[in-house]
Amino acid sequence: MSAPISLADLTDLASAVLERAGTAPAAARSVAAALVAADADGLASHGVSRLPAYADQVASGKVAGHAVPQVERVGAAALRVDAADGFAFPAVDSAIAEALAMLPTAGVVTAAIANSHHFGAAGYAVERIAAKGAIGLAFSNSPGAIAPWGGSKPLFGTNPIAFACPRAGDQPPLVIDLSLSLVARGKVMVAAQKGEAIPEGWALDAEGHPTTDAKAALAGTMLPMGGAKGAALVLMVELLTAALTGSNAGFEASSFFTADGPPPRIGQLLVLINPGPLSANRFAERVETILTAMLAEPGVRLPGSRRLSLRAKAEAEGVTIPPALMTTLLRYRDGA
Amino acid sequence: MSAPISLADLTDLASAVLERAGTAPAAARSVAAALVAADADGLASHGVSRLPAYADQVASGKVAGHAVPQVERVGAAALRVDAADGFAFPAVDSAIAEALAMLPTAGVVTAAIANSHHFGAAGYAVERIAAKGAIGLAFSNSPGAIAPWGGSKPLFGTNPIAFACPRAGDQPPLVIDLSLSLVARGKVMVAAQKGEAIPEGWALDAEGHPTTDAKAALAGTMLPMGGAKGAALVLMVELLTAALTGSNAGFEASSFFTADGPPPRIGQLLVLINPGPLSANRFAERVETILTAMLAEPGVRLPGSRRLSLRAKAEAEGVTIPPALMTTLLRYRDGA
Repeated sequence: MSAPISLADLTDLASAVLERAGTAPAAARSVAAALVAADADGLASHGVSRLPAYADQVASGKVAGHAVPQVERVGAAALRVDAADGFAFPAVDSAIAEALAMLPTAGVVTAAIANSHHFGAAGYAVERIAAKGAIGLAFSNSPGAIAPWGGSKPLFGTNPIAFACPRAGDQPPLVIDLSLSLVARGKVMVAAQKGEAIPEGWALDAEGHPTTDAKAALAGTMLPMGGAKGAALVLMVELLTAALTGSNAGFEASSFFTADGPPPRIGQLLVLINPGPLSANRFAERVETILTAMLAEPGVRLPGSRRLSLRAKAEAEGVTIPPALMTTLLRYRDGA
Repeated sequence: MSAPISLADLTDLASAVLERAGTAPAAARSVAAALVAADADGLASHGVSRLPAYADQVASGKVAGHAVPQVERVGAAALRVDAADGFAFPAVDSAIAEALAMLPTAGVVTAAIANSHHFGAAGYAVERIAAKGAIGLAFSNSPGAIAPWGGSKPLFGTNPIAFACPRAGDQPPLVIDLSLSLVARGKVMVAAQKGEAIPEGWALDAEGHPTTDAKAALAGTMLPMGGAKGAALVLMVELLTAALTGSNAGFEASSFFTADGPPPRIGQLLVLINPGPLSANRFAERVETILTAMLAEPGVRLPGSRRLSLRAKAEAEGVTIPPALMTTLLRYRDGA
C-alpha cells in the first residue's frame, strides 16, 4: 500500500506524462483534470490507469497531441465540434464553454463532437454543465463490444448515457452516468486473467451463444443491460453519436487501449437545456420534491451519492494509486 | 371474429366518440388519428381500446375537451407548451409544428409540454418529426408504477423513451420506442384476471419483495428494465418531464384510466435535431452504413419492422376490433 497522493500532485504528474509523450500543455491539463476527477470519484478504470495507453497513442500519432478543436456554429443553437483526432476532453471543454454562452438566448443547445477519442467518465461532462445551472445530457459511442439484438458481431460500443441537473441551494448536481452493457467489459477481462467463470447473462461467445467462459466472452460480445430494450438504446446512442456527428461507428473504430492503427474517430453528443423558462421557473422545486420523495423511502440512495463521498475524501486526503501504476507513470514522465 | 374496419372509418368513429363526450372537433380528430395509428401498428393497448376511458374523462371534466394548447417561445430554440389539462395529442401536434418551423435556423429545438395527459405510443410523435427530415427524441412521465431502486413505493411512471430518424431515399423513418418497465403493466393485469402467476423479476409486492402473485404485483410496483441502470433511466426521464416541464411527478399524477380525480397534469419533452449541418452532411450515409451492418447479421431485425408490416396490412385491409369493444364504441358514439 503506497501513500496517498494529493489530487493537485496527481494532476501535475498526469499532465507531465502527457506532455512528455508530445501532448500540447493545454490539452494535457484538460486530460489530466478529467482522469484525476475519475480517480477522485472512485472510477479508477477511467482514471490515471488510462495514462500509459493515452501516452503511447500520442507517441505513435494515433492521438494528435497538438490537435486544436474546431468549434463551428451551424445554427442558433447548434455547434459542430471537430476534435481533429485529438483527445476528447479538450473538444468537450470547448463545446461546453461555447454552448453555455449560447444557452441563455437559445434555451437549448446541442454540440456534436466528431473525430473524437475516449469520452472518459461521461458524468464528468454533464456535471460541469449542471454546475453552471443547466441540464446536461451526453452520449458517446465507443469501439465495438455489443452485438445488435439477435446477432453475434460486436458492432456497437458500450455507449454511455449521462444526465445531470442542478439542485436547489448549494447542493451538488445530481448526476446519472451509465454505460449500456450489463456489466463493464473490464470485469470479464479480470475473470479471464484469473481463470474464473463469469455469470450467465453477461456475455455471448463469438457464435452469439450465452457463455460463462470469460475467454470465450472476450472473443464474443457483451450483453446490453435490459435485453432487447437495452439493445435498442445502444442503437439509439450509436445513431446520436456516430451518425449525427458524422463519425465512425463502433465496428469501424480502433481501440482506445492500443497505440497502433488509425485514430478511433468516434463521436459524442452534448445537449444543454436551460430549465428555468421551460418549467415556468418550477424546475428547482420539482427536482427537490422528487428527490425528497425518493429519500423518504428506506434503502433508497440518490445516484452518485457514493461518488460524492469518495470525492470529498479524495479532496481531503488524496488518492492511493497502485504502486506498479505509479512506477509506470513516473517512468513515462521521466522518459526512462 | 368481426369484420375488419378501415382506418378511415375507425378514425371517424373514434372522433365521433370523443366529440359526443364533449371534445372539440379538432382535438377529437387529433386524438382519433393517434389512437388509430397505434391500432394500425399492432399496438392495441394504445389504440381505440383507450376510447371509453378517454371519453369518460372528458365527460367528467378530468380532461378539458375544449382545451386550447398554449405555445410560447421561451428561447430561440425552446418552446413551452401548456396542454391546459386537455389531451396530450393536440399539444404535441402544436409543439411539433412550431418546433419544425424553428428548426432550420436553430439546429435543435426542445418543447416542454406541461399539464398534459397520456402520451399514447411515444413513437407516434417522433416518427412524424423524422418524416420531416429531423431526428426526434421524446420522453414522457406517467402515473406511479415503478419504485426507485431499493424502494417499494411506485413513485415513477413507466416513462417511455422514443427516438426516430430519417432514412435515405424514400424509406420510412427508423423508430425506437420503449417504456422503461421490464414488461407492460397490462400483462400483469391480464395474469391477475386469469388467476395466473407471473414470472419472477417482473414486479415487487407492496413491501418491495419479489413476487410471482399477479394480484400482489398490482398492489406493488413494476420492476424497471435493466435493474439499477434502468431505474436510473426512469429517474432521468422523470426529471426531464415532470421537473423540466413543471408538471406532476408520477406519484402525484392521477390515473389515465379512471374518470374521477383531478387531471393527471404530467409532462412530455420533445427534442428535434436537424442532422445535416451537425454531421457535415454525412448523417444519411452513416445511418445506412450502420443499419446495413446490422442487417448483414443473420437473425437481426431493425426496430419497428414488425410494426411497419402490420401497418401496411392495416392500410390495405383495415383492422379488426374486438366485438365487445366495437359494441361499446358504438354505444358511446350514439350516447346510448
